[in-house]
Amino acid sequence: MNSVVKLNSMEKLTIVKVGGKIVEESISLKKLLSDFSKIKGNKVLVHGGGRSATALASKLGIESEMVNGRRITNAEMLKVVTMVYGGLVNKQIVAELQAIHVNALGLTGADLNYMRSEKRPVLDVDYGYVGDVKEVNAEILVDLISKGVVPVLAPLTHDNNGNLLNTNADTIASEAAKALSGFFEVTLMYCFEKKGVLLNENDDDSVIEFLTQDLFDKYILDGIVKGGMIPKLENSFEALKAGVKQVVITRSDQIHLDAGTKMML
Amino acid sequence: MNSVVKLNSMEKLTIVKVGGKIVEESISLKKLLSDFSKIKGNKVLVHGGGRSATALASKLGIESEMVNGRRITNAEMLKVVTMVYGGLVNKQIVAELQAIHVNALGLTGADLNYMRSEKRPVLDVDYGYVGDVKEVNAEILVDLISKGVVPVLAPLTHDNNGNLLNTNADTIASEAAKALSGFFEVTLMYCFEKKGVLLNENDDDSVIEFLTQDLFDKYILDGIVKGGMIPKLENSFEALKAGVKQVVITRSDQIHLDAGTKMML
Repeated sequence: MNSVVKLNSMEKLTIVKVGGKIVEESISLKKLLSDFSKIKGNKVLVHGGGRSATALASKLGIESEMVNGRRITNAEMLKVVTMVYGGLVNKQIVAELQAIHVNALGLTGADLNYMRSEKRPVLDVDYGYVGDVKEVNAEILVDLISKGVVPVLAPLTHDNNGNLLNTNADTIASEAAKALSGFFEVTLMYCFEKKGVLLNENDDDSVIEFLTQDLFDKYILDGIVKGGMIPKLENSFEALKAGVKQVVITRSDQIHLDAGTKMML
Repeated sequence: MNSVVKLNSMEKLTIVKVGGKIVEESISLKKLLSDFSKIKGNKVLVHGGGRSATALASKLGIESEMVNGRRITNAEMLKVVTMVYGGLVNKQIVAELQAIHVNALGLTGADLNYMRSEKRPVLDVDYGYVGDVKEVNAEILVDLISKGVVPVLAPLTHDNNGNLLNTNADTIASEAAKALSGFFEVTLMYCFEKKGVLLNENDDDSVIEFLTQDLFDKYILDGIVKGGMIPKLENSFEALKAGVKQVVITRSDQIHLDAGTKMML
């Protein structure tokens, strides 16, 4: 078999990243997991949990400090996110997925050493115990997925030197997607508050169905895509260039539908 | 091959249960994990975390109520133990084991649905979200162990209906040991504060090296074994009768040594 045939015969894999209050409130989480279970074939779920972490920290008298949208993670805050991301949110999702016959397995980067990171160097900002991903052991995930297991990835990695590190869930999702694109035809799905990338920010139904690099560049020039959306979409194109087949920007209640903005090279 | 040969050719597996402050303090945990890593062959670690759970609950203004040595687990306390057992303690152990080249994977009963329980019926006491183990899917653990993975089991199970349940770590260890005894020659090791079962409670070095059912019965009559030790040892004999090869009662700093009290049928 030549490599083209091999590529064509690759199985599909959908990686869904969902954060925000959807995974932190009982009713919306149940709906999300029900929709997630309807996605056909191989799948992976990546979750956040920032609101719960902030709430727990607050109850414990630990101040939450954010810089550029990233959480400053001192030793106390690392314990909080380990408890909330690795325990509370991850295990509740796993238990609820099992109840609807999805064979979930909760993982941090330390588990099976599937994702290693290094503590972010201190430049202008000391983010504390925050990890930049350095290595994804994709074979470990492939082996699990090939057995019908659905990995549920918490936004925690480790430095393989005994330290857990806080790592942005979007990054976990894109790094996993890139590493798995050698084994699967990967769709990386990001859940936003809107139904997709909007042509008109005041019209929630003006979803851009397809977005290529050329269109993206044009939309930036036209001022249609702006602000914080630009780096998010740039990261998506990075993932596509690294082998991910498709990135979908959608709303969490649409993950099981053919909806949202589809980005391809 | 007849069944005797098959039994003789079974690989060994050591299941170590350790609780108390050993797993909750950084220095003693490092020593424990180093010793654990020296145990040859297949192994499983089962941990507690009660002191940390009590401490977190206290900081959050949640009262810890114990009846017969068991924690009453209301909805708020279930969140606390899910965070502490499934997150804080479990993930720190996994990260530190990875750092010393032990390929650890943290699991609650919900992960891969490896251990299912049912909420304890309310008789004299309502224990709340506490689970009695009903089913262990041993093959899942066997598959992992056969690949060199070291499962790290948190004292949490699930009812396969979306609910996590608090489950005593001793019970997790004995239920896993019994289920795995069909696949391995299992040694179940309980870490106590003493070096083993003592012939003379005032002499820490008077460790009983071997304990059979006959000797146990005799020691009870003689008043040598008494109090809370009796049900613990009775549970160990139950595990032996269910197929576990050997139960060892030892101190946590001796788990890698041929020490402690060995119980066999």
